[in-house]
Amino acid sequence: MTAEFAYPRRVEFAETDAFGIVHFASMFCYMEEAEHSLWHAAGLTLAGRHGPHGWPRVSATFSFRNPLHYPDDFIVQVRLEASGRSSLRYAFDVVRGDTLIGTGTMITVCVRRDSGTMIPVEVPPGVMEKLRAVLDRDGS
Amino acid sequence: MTAEFAYPRRVEFAETDAFGIVHFASMFCYMEEAEHSLWHAAGLTLAGRHGPHGWPRVSATFSFRNPLHYPDDFIVQVRLEASGRSSLRYAFDVVRGDTLIGTGTMITVCVRRDSGTMIPVEVPPGVMEKLRAVLDRDGS
Amino acid sequence: MTAEFAYPRRVEFAETDAFGIVHFASMFCYMEEAEHSLWHAAGLTLAGRHGPHGWPRVSATFSFRNPLHYPDDFIVQVRLEASGRSSLRYAFDVVRGDTLIGTGTMITVCVRRDSGTMIPVEVPPGVMEKLRAVLDRDGS
Amino acid sequence: MTAEFAYPRRVEFAETDAFGIVHFASMFCYMEEAEHSLWHAAGLTLAGRHGPHGWPRVSATFSFRNPLHYPDDFIVQVRLEASGRSSLRYAFDVVRGDTLIGTGTMITVCVRRDSGTMIPVEVPPGVMEKLRAVLDRDGS
Repeated sequence: MTAEFAYPRRVEFAETDAFGIVHFASMFCYMEEAEHSLWHAAGLTLAGRHGPHGWPRVSATFSFRNPLHYPDDFIVQVRLEASGRSSLRYAFDVVRGDTLIGTGTMITVCVRRDSGTMIPVEVPPGVMEKLRAVLDRDGS
Repeated sequence: MTAEFAYPRRVEFAETDAFGIVHFASMFCYMEEAEHSLWHAAGLTLAGRHGPHGWPRVSATFSFRNPLHYPDDFIVQVRLEASGRSSLRYAFDVVRGDTLIGTGTMITVCVRRDSGTMIPVEVPPGVMEKLRAVLDRDGS
Repeated sequence: MTAEFAYPRRVEFAETDAFGIVHFASMFCYMEEAEHSLWHAAGLTLAGRHGPHGWPRVSATFSFRNPLHYPDDFIVQVRLEASGRSSLRYAFDVVRGDTLIGTGTMITVCVRRDSGTMIPVEVPPGVMEKLRAVLDRDGS
Repeated sequence: MTAEFAYPRRVEFAETDAFGIVHFASMFCYMEEAEHSLWHAAGLTLAGRHGPHGWPRVSATFSFRNPLHYPDDFIVQVRLEASGRSSLRYAFDVVRGDTLIGTGTMITVCVRRDSGTMIPVEVPPGVMEKLRAVLDRDGS
């Protein structure tokens, strides 16, 4: 059984490009949306206006296997691959039915917003537990 | 003679859509870029991180005459049509050579950022003079 | 009773800007998404890959009353205000609960994609009937 | 001496997010713009409307070291790291003055557009020579 969260989405027309496919940069937005949807399902807010923390991205990757088109329905599957003292590493599969569109990764780090810096701080207590609870519940 | 400012730009591939043309929402980004370029030419910063003011958009319009394609070179011509106590109204022509791509308008209003509200405040002194100096210098 | 269609949406983080609000150009994407969602509900595809027609935007407007923030839930209400031989005119209200975020309009025109031009053609038979059936059914 | 091409750019306001920094997905657009600018400097068009080839992205990565803000001026440095029979691998450094914003990679593959598929074909003759001529000329 894989602990994962499924984020369903439809391609919007604005996300396509003149090759007639989804522009590759949109994949990074899809991964971020899936991450935020996971947090929301866990009762957490990743980037609230008044919260003390921010979660800037440290790195992101995506590898394509097949193109997406408008108006495809697809799913972004999120897994939490690793967690450090101040960072989280996610893995993503983007699928349309049985077709793998591609796979990606993203590392985010927790910082204090009021400090005006990007110095990592510890992941707030409870965050990992709440995320894992959703991933375990929804996994297959 | 028209007091106006010319912002030259090339279409980027990410701005196109699956019809093979520039997605219409990009025109609103082009108009905003031209506005910001005008402010920059006037030695002003519209949306600096630490400045006291913000300039949210109150309204925006665009009417198309012809499509833009990748990798067209085009120009956004900016005019300052009107100014109120706390707002500015711009007009824009987007042209590619002799071809009119379309025309637009945008109204922005000055607010204090630290107030956390969108209550309009007076346009800071000197802004209009500096903008008009560039528009008069560059107009044709 | 108003014949209209409701498109529910959540603000995504990528749609915000450094003022902490949804960037104004995203409103035009929201209106387009709502239009496409209406077409989808009517069993129609506005911009399919292999269809003979395209629907470029002729004009679009939006006026703000209040800002949207991440991660607000909001609704785009779509109405079909007028239809010509080859064009449709939509009106939109964007609302978050009882708060009006703003109002917009969009005019689209039907063209033949294979012609390589933007010459308007007649709205294909059945389109208006199917759109109106959804708008009448979902209106309030 | 490094064979590389420098693409200068200013951050546009629409590219920021509510954390007050450039949204991470924009980095992928910046890398693509730099790639296209290199092709343009070489007298080549990567994604012309009527050309026989397309260059979809196979993979892309970016790792952040420091955030970018509006309205920072920055440079995207492009290198051609490797080339296969049908693919190109680029490496990118994004810098603001002496500050490294981050590094990225992108692999693109040549396909025939008229085939309606994503089957790789050989890189057209002359492309590598023209790209390398620019990279050697502009390198430092």
